[in-house]
Amino acid sequence: MSDSKKKKSEEKAKLREEIKSLRARLVAQQQQLRAAKLPVLVLIEGWSAAGKGSLIKEIISEIDPRFYQVISPAILPESESRYPFLYPFAKAIPENGKLVFLDSGWMESAVRKVLRREITREEYKCRLRQINEFERQLRDGGYLVLKIFLDIPREEQFARLKVLRESADTEWRVTNDDLWQYAEYPQFKKTYDEFMEKTEEAVSWHVLDGMKKKATVRDALKLLVTKIDKALEQGRYVGEPFEEKFPLIKMPTLKEVDLSPVISDEEYKKELKKLQSRLSELHNMLYDRKIPVILCYEGWDAAGKGGNIRRVAYPLDPRGVDVHPIASPEPHELNRQFLWRFWTRLPRSGHICIFDRTWYGRVMVERLEGFCSEKDWQRAYNEINEFERTLTDWGAVVMKFWIHIDQDTQLARFTDRQNTPEKQWKITDEDWRNREKWPEYEVAVDEMLQKTSTKNAPWYIIESNDKKYARIKTLRLIVKTLDKAVKEHF
Amino acid sequence: MSDSKKKKSEEKAKLREEIKSLRARLVAQQQQLRAAKLPVLVLIEGWSAAGKGSLIKEIISEIDPRFYQVISPAILPESESRYPFLYPFAKAIPENGKLVFLDSGWMESAVRKVLRREITREEYKCRLRQINEFERQLRDGGYLVLKIFLDIPREEQFARLKVLRESADTEWRVTNDDLWQYAEYPQFKKTYDEFMEKTEEAVSWHVLDGMKKKATVRDALKLLVTKIDKALEQGRYVGEPFEEKFPLIKMPTLKEVDLSPVISDEEYKKELKKLQSRLSELHNMLYDRKIPVILCYEGWDAAGKGGNIRRVAYPLDPRGVDVHPIASPEPHELNRQFLWRFWTRLPRSGHICIFDRTWYGRVMVERLEGFCSEKDWQRAYNEINEFERTLTDWGAVVMKFWIHIDQDTQLARFTDRQNTPEKQWKITDEDWRNREKWPEYEVAVDEMLQKTSTKNAPWYIIESNDKKYARIKTLRLIVKTLDKAVKEHF
Repeated sequence: MSDSKKKKSEEKAKLREEIKSLRARLVAQQQQLRAAKLPVLVLIEGWSAAGKGSLIKEIISEIDPRFYQVISPAILPESESRYPFLYPFAKAIPENGKLVFLDSGWMESAVRKVLRREITREEYKCRLRQINEFERQLRDGGYLVLKIFLDIPREEQFARLKVLRESADTEWRVTNDDLWQYAEYPQFKKTYDEFMEKTEEAVSWHVLDGMKKKATVRDALKLLVTKIDKALEQGRYVGEPFEEKFPLIKMPTLKEVDLSPVISDEEYKKELKKLQSRLSELHNMLYDRKIPVILCYEGWDAAGKGGNIRRVAYPLDPRGVDVHPIASPEPHELNRQFLWRFWTRLPRSGHICIFDRTWYGRVMVERLEGFCSEKDWQRAYNEINEFERTLTDWGAVVMKFWIHIDQDTQLARFTDRQNTPEKQWKITDEDWRNREKWPEYEVAVDEMLQKTSTKNAPWYIIESNDKKYARIKTLRLIVKTLDKAVKEHF
Repeated sequence: MSDSKKKKSEEKAKLREEIKSLRARLVAQQQQLRAAKLPVLVLIEGWSAAGKGSLIKEIISEIDPRFYQVISPAILPESESRYPFLYPFAKAIPENGKLVFLDSGWMESAVRKVLRREITREEYKCRLRQINEFERQLRDGGYLVLKIFLDIPREEQFARLKVLRESADTEWRVTNDDLWQYAEYPQFKKTYDEFMEKTEEAVSWHVLDGMKKKATVRDALKLLVTKIDKALEQGRYVGEPFEEKFPLIKMPTLKEVDLSPVISDEEYKKELKKLQSRLSELHNMLYDRKIPVILCYEGWDAAGKGGNIRRVAYPLDPRGVDVHPIASPEPHELNRQFLWRFWTRLPRSGHICIFDRTWYGRVMVERLEGFCSEKDWQRAYNEINEFERTLTDWGAVVMKFWIHIDQDTQLARFTDRQNTPEKQWKITDEDWRNREKWPEYEVAVDEMLQKTSTKNAPWYIIESNDKKYARIKTLRLIVKTLDKAVKEHF
């Protein structure tokens, strides 16, 4: 054997050993991740035919399937459809203690859209901002996010696509999109580079050379294993609260709200009929124009949320409306970033969804009961404002209602529920316990109203000592807002 | 007021009262359903423009959104896609104690397909059988299923479609499908009638007159309320075991299996490489031909399922394969028919999915630990055979592996796990407890193998005292079967 040949074969053997030992470390890390409840999201982007799929295959080959998932949002039916841009990716985030590998994700999705001119430069910029926010929220929520870009030069891409196209069994893998990317390689390159530069705010990019085959696998494994070790050593990260400026609407404190307004039975019936009939017409127009609507209800126990929601939902076509009652999270929900269970319940465009309690649980019950850390709920005001801006950027109408009563009215209704057999299921010990914490809740609600009533997603305080008054006020606000949305859409 | 006018107005008032009182009963029943853990599935089928949506709206108007959901599988993206015919409906079944209203479902889906000639008469017949099986399984699993067909004559349909088309805000609601149905009214009528006649096996149909407006609402409510009362009175139904004939493959008992086969390291390496490389090629062809593949793993604890699965998954494109580790069900899974959590994990056509433990838990752990009633697990053999036939009818390749070892080998592996720090997480007290029940498990496994190794979805016993031998045997079987499937598809 010649010297150079010998050296090569030694190098190869060394590489094999390195990969083997890195894989063994990753297998051991699984258990540590599980114990530390640390979720890991690995985003693999890169050129078509750069070998993203093969790289993932090599990384996962020894891990136990109970601890990881490979997701290709690009081929999920949701991705092409009527949801916000980040929806398929937000849906795909791992549970605590698990790994998710994304075989291309938000980079590919954003870059293709802008190069195809399916979105404007303005919209593209907006997406870049959303991506930075999304990544920061994951990081601050304790996620380890690793972003890899797999790079190959144009000639290599050409050669690989050619091989795939030459076999009957693999030619279907080369799509028109791939050929288009090859044809427009320089433009893609510029856009990818720019994209990476602009999305380094919370999580940095790692460009790996897709030409080095086994050495690429080694490099990716080393990167992942090192990052995990570091994260395990430092413990689950909890992001610092921060304040970004949102255009806020000045809200009164709850104490300042006059709860005396009432409505006569006669006027109630007349108005209800008129508003419901108008809402029904508007639903058709919203559907036609594909405008999504998100109505959020919060309020004191026994304030009348349920009855209010029913009056709003009744005139709507049940095929186009979903009411989501939000109870305490199930285990698989609790094990993910707090907004995940709302991301996954978003309506399709043109549909209306009504949340009976919402993500604001974070800054009310979770804050007061200590279900999250102080930093978590303090950070949440901005995280929620960002989330809602993502929704309104997408084109959604977002309205938030605080259904308000005073303590005496609550007591009267609790007592009535207690004493009426068919209503007893509605009242639990927890309601009484919450009632004792009224002053603490009032502080939290006031802070929430001050910090999250943005111009794009405003809060409305609904005086509900008289439930009928409350229903009419809510319906009126909804009809007015949707009317405006429909008109602006022409 | 004339006498006839007076009579009419009295009748109208009476009708209003009736509806009001029926709605109040339904509201009260919610709580009883919840207490009795009784799930209710209401299927509303009928002519386009018959008023299905409005009827549902009137039925649900007083129920608490926490207890019901309206689903329109027809407009779900899944329905048009690459899943079995029943997939969107199986996905939609309610949790215990809740109601689901389907705004058209398996009737509309099957009838349109056959009238469009997108499926043959043979396939249509097959679907009718699947529907009867599906409805029976729900009924036997304790579901109250109510099927309503909303009928209107042709002239009325014409008039209603005309009104919708005349307004700019509602014309989008009239689809080409609706116009086609009107044009082909007689043929649709014949097919609907025949469909109803043929799907009465487990659950009967109720045809309601869609012309009577408020009276239709009253009739539907009365039907629902009466059925629920009856179901509550009788208590949750548990179906009787039954035996249908499936073409079975004669299986040996576990005792008869010779566990001595081994493979040399050298042959293992050679074969592994060869088989994995072929499997990788086959995956491309399967994808191209859109053949779904479902690989099911069961076996003794420490038999080597995990390592076996990893060797099979490794050569596959991670974008087209999903490994589903099946642990004990989460609450929302436990609250539905036992096959639900497998229905919802089915692969898209062209994808491979690997179940690490499966629906056979029903006739093993659930049987032995008393997690279901005796009737439930006895009925499950046939229910599972039907489920798997539904999958193979759809075109899926279904293979089931029992990874087999003897008690001594298990003990050796348990001890090794116990004594090796990195493996300790793999061994729990439960494993030791299960080991004590080996004889009972053996009886259950033998019965399972005898009763569910059908020609379309056969069991393979994999001798795994030598794990490497087991891997090669499994890979060989998979390659052989997929090779055949690919060839038959040309």
